[in-house]
Amino acid sequence: MIMPNSLSALPKTLVTRAVQDALLEDLGSTGDLTSDSMIPEEATLIASVVNRQPGCIAGTDFIRAAMAELSHDVRVEIHQKDGSVIPAGTTIATLSGPARSILSGERVGLNFLTHLSGIATATREIVDLIDDLPVRVTCTRKTTPGLRAFEKFAVRAGGGHNHRFGLYDGVMLKDNHIAAVGGDIGTAIDQARAHIGHMVKIEVEVDTLDQLEKALPHAPDIFLLDNMSLDQLVTAVRMIDGRAIAEASGGITSKTARAIAETGVDVMSLGWLTHSAPSLDIGLDIL
Amino acid sequence: MIMPNSLSALPKTLVTRAVQDALLEDLGSTGDLTSDSMIPEEATLIASVVNRQPGCIAGTDFIRAAMAELSHDVRVEIHQKDGSVIPAGTTIATLSGPARSILSGERVGLNFLTHLSGIATATREIVDLIDDLPVRVTCTRKTTPGLRAFEKFAVRAGGGHNHRFGLYDGVMLKDNHIAAVGGDIGTAIDQARAHIGHMVKIEVEVDTLDQLEKALPHAPDIFLLDNMSLDQLVTAVRMIDGRAIAEASGGITSKTARAIAETGVDVMSLGWLTHSAPSLDIGLDIL
Amino acid sequence: MIMPNSLSALPKTLVTRAVQDALLEDLGSTGDLTSDSMIPEEATLIASVVNRQPGCIAGTDFIRAAMAELSHDVRVEIHQKDGSVIPAGTTIATLSGPARSILSGERVGLNFLTHLSGIATATREIVDLIDDLPVRVTCTRKTTPGLRAFEKFAVRAGGGHNHRFGLYDGVMLKDNHIAAVGGDIGTAIDQARAHIGHMVKIEVEVDTLDQLEKALPHAPDIFLLDNMSLDQLVTAVRMIDGRAIAEASGGITSKTARAIAETGVDVMSLGWLTHSAPSLDIGLDIL
Amino acid sequence: MIMPNSLSALPKTLVTRAVQDALLEDLGSTGDLTSDSMIPEEATLIASVVNRQPGCIAGTDFIRAAMAELSHDVRVEIHQKDGSVIPAGTTIATLSGPARSILSGERVGLNFLTHLSGIATATREIVDLIDDLPVRVTCTRKTTPGLRAFEKFAVRAGGGHNHRFGLYDGVMLKDNHIAAVGGDIGTAIDQARAHIGHMVKIEVEVDTLDQLEKALPHAPDIFLLDNMSLDQLVTAVRMIDGRAIAEASGGITSKTARAIAETGVDVMSLGWLTHSAPSLDIGLDIL
Amino acid sequence: MIMPNSLSALPKTLVTRAVQDALLEDLGSTGDLTSDSMIPEEATLIASVVNRQPGCIAGTDFIRAAMAELSHDVRVEIHQKDGSVIPAGTTIATLSGPARSILSGERVGLNFLTHLSGIATATREIVDLIDDLPVRVTCTRKTTPGLRAFEKFAVRAGGGHNHRFGLYDGVMLKDNHIAAVGGDIGTAIDQARAHIGHMVKIEVEVDTLDQLEKALPHAPDIFLLDNMSLDQLVTAVRMIDGRAIAEASGGITSKTARAIAETGVDVMSLGWLTHSAPSLDIGLDIL
Amino acid sequence: MIMPNSLSALPKTLVTRAVQDALLEDLGSTGDLTSDSMIPEEATLIASVVNRQPGCIAGTDFIRAAMAELSHDVRVEIHQKDGSVIPAGTTIATLSGPARSILSGERVGLNFLTHLSGIATATREIVDLIDDLPVRVTCTRKTTPGLRAFEKFAVRAGGGHNHRFGLYDGVMLKDNHIAAVGGDIGTAIDQARAHIGHMVKIEVEVDTLDQLEKALPHAPDIFLLDNMSLDQLVTAVRMIDGRAIAEASGGITSKTARAIAETGVDVMSLGWLTHSAPSLDIGLDIL
Repeated sequence: MIMPNSLSALPKTLVTRAVQDALLEDLGSTGDLTSDSMIPEEATLIASVVNRQPGCIAGTDFIRAAMAELSHDVRVEIHQKDGSVIPAGTTIATLSGPARSILSGERVGLNFLTHLSGIATATREIVDLIDDLPVRVTCTRKTTPGLRAFEKFAVRAGGGHNHRFGLYDGVMLKDNHIAAVGGDIGTAIDQARAHIGHMVKIEVEVDTLDQLEKALPHAPDIFLLDNMSLDQLVTAVRMIDGRAIAEASGGITSKTARAIAETGVDVMSLGWLTHSAPSLDIGLDIL
Repeated sequence: MIMPNSLSALPKTLVTRAVQDALLEDLGSTGDLTSDSMIPEEATLIASVVNRQPGCIAGTDFIRAAMAELSHDVRVEIHQKDGSVIPAGTTIATLSGPARSILSGERVGLNFLTHLSGIATATREIVDLIDDLPVRVTCTRKTTPGLRAFEKFAVRAGGGHNHRFGLYDGVMLKDNHIAAVGGDIGTAIDQARAHIGHMVKIEVEVDTLDQLEKALPHAPDIFLLDNMSLDQLVTAVRMIDGRAIAEASGGITSKTARAIAETGVDVMSLGWLTHSAPSLDIGLDIL
Repeated sequence: MIMPNSLSALPKTLVTRAVQDALLEDLGSTGDLTSDSMIPEEATLIASVVNRQPGCIAGTDFIRAAMAELSHDVRVEIHQKDGSVIPAGTTIATLSGPARSILSGERVGLNFLTHLSGIATATREIVDLIDDLPVRVTCTRKTTPGLRAFEKFAVRAGGGHNHRFGLYDGVMLKDNHIAAVGGDIGTAIDQARAHIGHMVKIEVEVDTLDQLEKALPHAPDIFLLDNMSLDQLVTAVRMIDGRAIAEASGGITSKTARAIAETGVDVMSLGWLTHSAPSLDIGLDIL
Repeated sequence: MIMPNSLSALPKTLVTRAVQDALLEDLGSTGDLTSDSMIPEEATLIASVVNRQPGCIAGTDFIRAAMAELSHDVRVEIHQKDGSVIPAGTTIATLSGPARSILSGERVGLNFLTHLSGIATATREIVDLIDDLPVRVTCTRKTTPGLRAFEKFAVRAGGGHNHRFGLYDGVMLKDNHIAAVGGDIGTAIDQARAHIGHMVKIEVEVDTLDQLEKALPHAPDIFLLDNMSLDQLVTAVRMIDGRAIAEASGGITSKTARAIAETGVDVMSLGWLTHSAPSLDIGLDIL
Repeated sequence: MIMPNSLSALPKTLVTRAVQDALLEDLGSTGDLTSDSMIPEEATLIASVVNRQPGCIAGTDFIRAAMAELSHDVRVEIHQKDGSVIPAGTTIATLSGPARSILSGERVGLNFLTHLSGIATATREIVDLIDDLPVRVTCTRKTTPGLRAFEKFAVRAGGGHNHRFGLYDGVMLKDNHIAAVGGDIGTAIDQARAHIGHMVKIEVEVDTLDQLEKALPHAPDIFLLDNMSLDQLVTAVRMIDGRAIAEASGGITSKTARAIAETGVDVMSLGWLTHSAPSLDIGLDIL
Repeated sequence: MIMPNSLSALPKTLVTRAVQDALLEDLGSTGDLTSDSMIPEEATLIASVVNRQPGCIAGTDFIRAAMAELSHDVRVEIHQKDGSVIPAGTTIATLSGPARSILSGERVGLNFLTHLSGIATATREIVDLIDDLPVRVTCTRKTTPGLRAFEKFAVRAGGGHNHRFGLYDGVMLKDNHIAAVGGDIGTAIDQARAHIGHMVKIEVEVDTLDQLEKALPHAPDIFLLDNMSLDQLVTAVRMIDGRAIAEASGGITSKTARAIAETGVDVMSLGWLTHSAPSLDIGLDIL
């Protein structure tokens, strides 16, 4: 069996820049008025990053990066790798060093970690429901502006896979596009293929089995079966018969995921993983 | 009665920069492969931004900014001002102009609008529960990194108010800070006051009525009554007796908000408004 | 027959930012010492952008953007669209307005236009050699740092197509990757597929027909047939038999392109189009 | 007695970015033509940063940051902490390491240090005149664009305190604002309070004792007593009677500061500290 | 006689970026709390920018740019061009339009204008003292970090000229450089010339007439006669005899400028123009 | 004889920023899909940077910077300094450390190195042709946008010198400028001199000996003898007679360089060095 080696990492420059911007957002022009007023410069402390809820962790790099940006003297040990599923009360990381730096960077580090772990946890919940079936859980382009790279990483950490990253790395033909070339779905696919690079895949959104039938001879790479009933999905998968990837979307939740997965689709895409998953409750305990 | 004139606006430069970055995130180095392959350059369309769920709107500026960044020729009419509470199916905005620009900028504009409207809607729900009481609903610093200005704006649009924006514009004394100056809460308050500017307020977090009593003579501006029972809150409000602002926090949801508000506190702060409110479902309908 | 509607445009924000940076690079902290010393502020002129050599044009947007950045009062008319093949001495654009702005922005605008038109011209020369054959000409990732989006656009303007844009939007398995998973090419393909999103294509580089044979059952999307002889290419194409895209690379020049194209490969990729094509000679004539 | 622990530090990311920009401003695209032409790459030197005038030091972090940006091999020892008041000829810092880096970064480091020390020195002079009185010296928003965080830090280093940092962290009601709500000062205060967050203070500018009297019942946090005579100030302080902070502004110099402080005001704000203080003469002596 | 056409303009992109950064510095994440709370969105006003002191104006572009960044609807009329010498009470500019935008942008615009006009005024005072003599007044590299382009522009507006802009556009040989090549001033000059481009000038700092004599045969472009007595300057000018530019520096103030100019030097450079000139008092009067 | 000490270095901040941007361009939001899928996180490798063609090397700093940005654990040894002329097959650098980082950064590092070495090699070829003559080879402002600092460095590495870096550090009078002041070349020179700083040189472009004669009494620093015949150049050099620098431009290639150099000109400027030199073939060999 093929096993992924490990979770692929985020480009380091992206993480550093995002953390710098978030620190400036929180520190403003003055810094941490409270810590700087109260805590002696030479004071040190040891603290644990602990989750209050069970969940799947994503974004530990941001804890490390936030501390590194504030002081070279904070030591950060990560005990739980991104993607770990842990019970409430697990120590995710231990921080030790200058008290001012740890207290000043706490919120920025946690804001990344809780947001991304919330997404990873939501993804993991869906993935676990269908783990025995040959179907993938993916996200969409409905992400929080400026955080797409990180949110898509969180989906991977939760056991999901990524859909296209933007308008630039995949074609997705919808009604309006097809209408723009005269309404014929086959013409649309052929025209797209003529236009784009040979490394780019073409996905076509179909709402009906009739559309699917018309599109099949033009060999798109993926069909987006949008808001179809379970019966329609079963039929669609049979019609496609392995000639393209079958992707279901629309209304996929923890209640419906299993049934949809059992229709035989290859991929299920869920927008809410990245735009509506609640954050995971994680805090810093000073020891 | 005093009525705010209008919802204060976001600094325009902030909105423009955020939209530019989000567009580059979605368009990458290539642009919109699908629209550019299919839609003739000269094609135009008219589209409506319509909410699929009832809610409170925030972020319409981002629709305007996304279109302006892509083309000077898209006309944007906003029909519902930020802060409006609208039933499902309301036309929030109408876009008309080059089809390519509208389709390419749709997702970026909606990603801002749905995220911020989700926060405004969650805020409005809490605010409506306690509207007849002299208590404010506020957010915290638990925001999505990079989006704090916008999320705090969404809270205002939903009828809430803002807590401090960062570590730089308010003092918040917690256990660790007080411990750092020897454990005496009064000393901590006095020392903070000596350090900071005269335009900055001091808030003290207290978990017990005993702490509250010790702190009162040192006249902090606000008390954060953290995770207190309803009874404790009632007593705390009586003890403070208008000499400081009484702020409740911890476990405030639509179920508990009314009871907490009735204790007489001045402010209720809710972290989840900005980190866990689901987005509001809003889409673009091509006419 | 399927005809692309038009050359897809560069994201406007990318063009604007690149032009701003290039103008600052040329103007420094002082501006144009010569023009500002000599030309009265109110002087105007009319000038033509004219190519001294025949070629294929790409990058006219940069002329427009450079002028817009310096003054709202320069009028720019583009007479030759990107992708046009024109004889020497053609008027590509006409500029009219403040003399200082036109003279100060001339070099920046031309530096983009001559560089990109050089790439488009080189591409067009290869494309014209094989125009009657069903084969595409593409570029690679060997681009000038910071200019990849623009250079890939120039390749499209010259009638070519784009290969992947970076390490992020396509898999390319080479010797080292295959060795890293134990040396079996099929295992490598399967592992990559398990890891990546369903919108991403997998290309495998093969140097021998033996490697090709081992890889074929694992159904990669594209084979990179690297530095193969014409005979090997013919055999490879026959072996692949339409089950994947056949891409030739290595030593493809105007001398060899026709013969390689006639082997039946689907794609030919040429690194030198973007890293070594000489710029096209284009100048500004003051009228 | 309450003693501040130490001078709160500038956010490190702010310092680094400012130093990088200043180095690029001085080095341009070519670097230090003189040093690179003359000094062998392996040459080292030792140099002292020495003040030619007595004064109060602020900005030593910038010396360290400028050297760190140019080379990891320059060793910087700071002998005088920010806020130190030192006689002329004191060694503030010692630099040792690559001669090219030290000579190339000298001016950038000194430009920050002399500017900020000039502000700290001016502040310290005023503070020393009134040190026995319970009154604070503060700056205003009249700062050099882009340097506000650093200039406000210099004021703190000189023993002063900071006023609000911008339009975002404090309300300041002036004539025009009051006129905009109909001219009643009490309405203005109440309306501002309804609008802003509970962590934000409200200051009202009053020119006459009559305005003061009308405003007092509305309980603003601070009164700005603008350009009042000494007699008026004495009366105003008596009228306020501790119910708000009394701040004097207008024409406060080393000649007038003592008399104004003796009126009993709590705060004196001086714009010229940040916009017109001459720089402190500090140079680099090669040993 | 040769007359400069007009004061050369600042690169527009530089002005826009500086104004955007300064606005964000002042508006933070929230904007102008006071104006947004008090002023109705639709309110308009007319205001004048008026100087409280006589002086020489520089930086009016920043008023225009600050308003443009906040609203397209503010109309800005500049009545006094940069470089104008005006009595106190002159209307420099008139602003009309949305009250919120004008009040929110006032301080940023004025902070640039008062700072740069202070430099222009100081420069003009020195220039006027020596106007009948063939000598130039110039600034140095002792500028406020991040503002060099603008401060050097202000010097030009005040009738002065610019020295080199950084380490990149001119060679300045000092003791340490000469020592690094063995101590011979002629060797140093020759080596610099071998190294640098042919468009770059070489200046040599000399403290004694002996050094001057040794350097003269090596034909540097400029001599920096540092801290020489009037007698020494007279002799130095005679020795140089037009073969190089003679530049005096050190201790040049309004008291000493005339006498130094009369020694016959070509250029006088003054560091304090850019690092210690007080700002010019300019305010906004609402009409 | 005077020997330059060493090749002056690029400002480190410029190199770092350019490498960060180039890495983001190649890694996008996802990183290196291929390496991250295939290579275990802990795998290491050793690799050599080797040139496939003989040439002159420039840009080794970029190899070091690209690796440093991706991982602190890659060790980079540079064996050939910038400016070295080496036969094909020379090991320029050795990299050892994490396999993922080395493979992910390879292309970005090489894209800089091959581009800059191509320019250095082209420059060195021309320089070698005329090495025994007292004439310099320089570049122009016809550079690739965004890369001017680096391309000018490559010219220096190849034994050439730099012309002005932009419009800001030198005056270049051409026909249009002269026409703008009424057509008299002497007036133009005098007016430019009155306008600019005393550290800036003035170059005048002349096409005829007649223009040269008219300009000579006005003592410009350099004459650009544009597209003159060999005979004209000889005459021009004689007329100038050491009173200014004589620079030839137009049509200078390896075929014509020797003859033009023998006319006695001081400088030859070649645009194609920076806009049309092919890149040098350099690759990474995994050991």
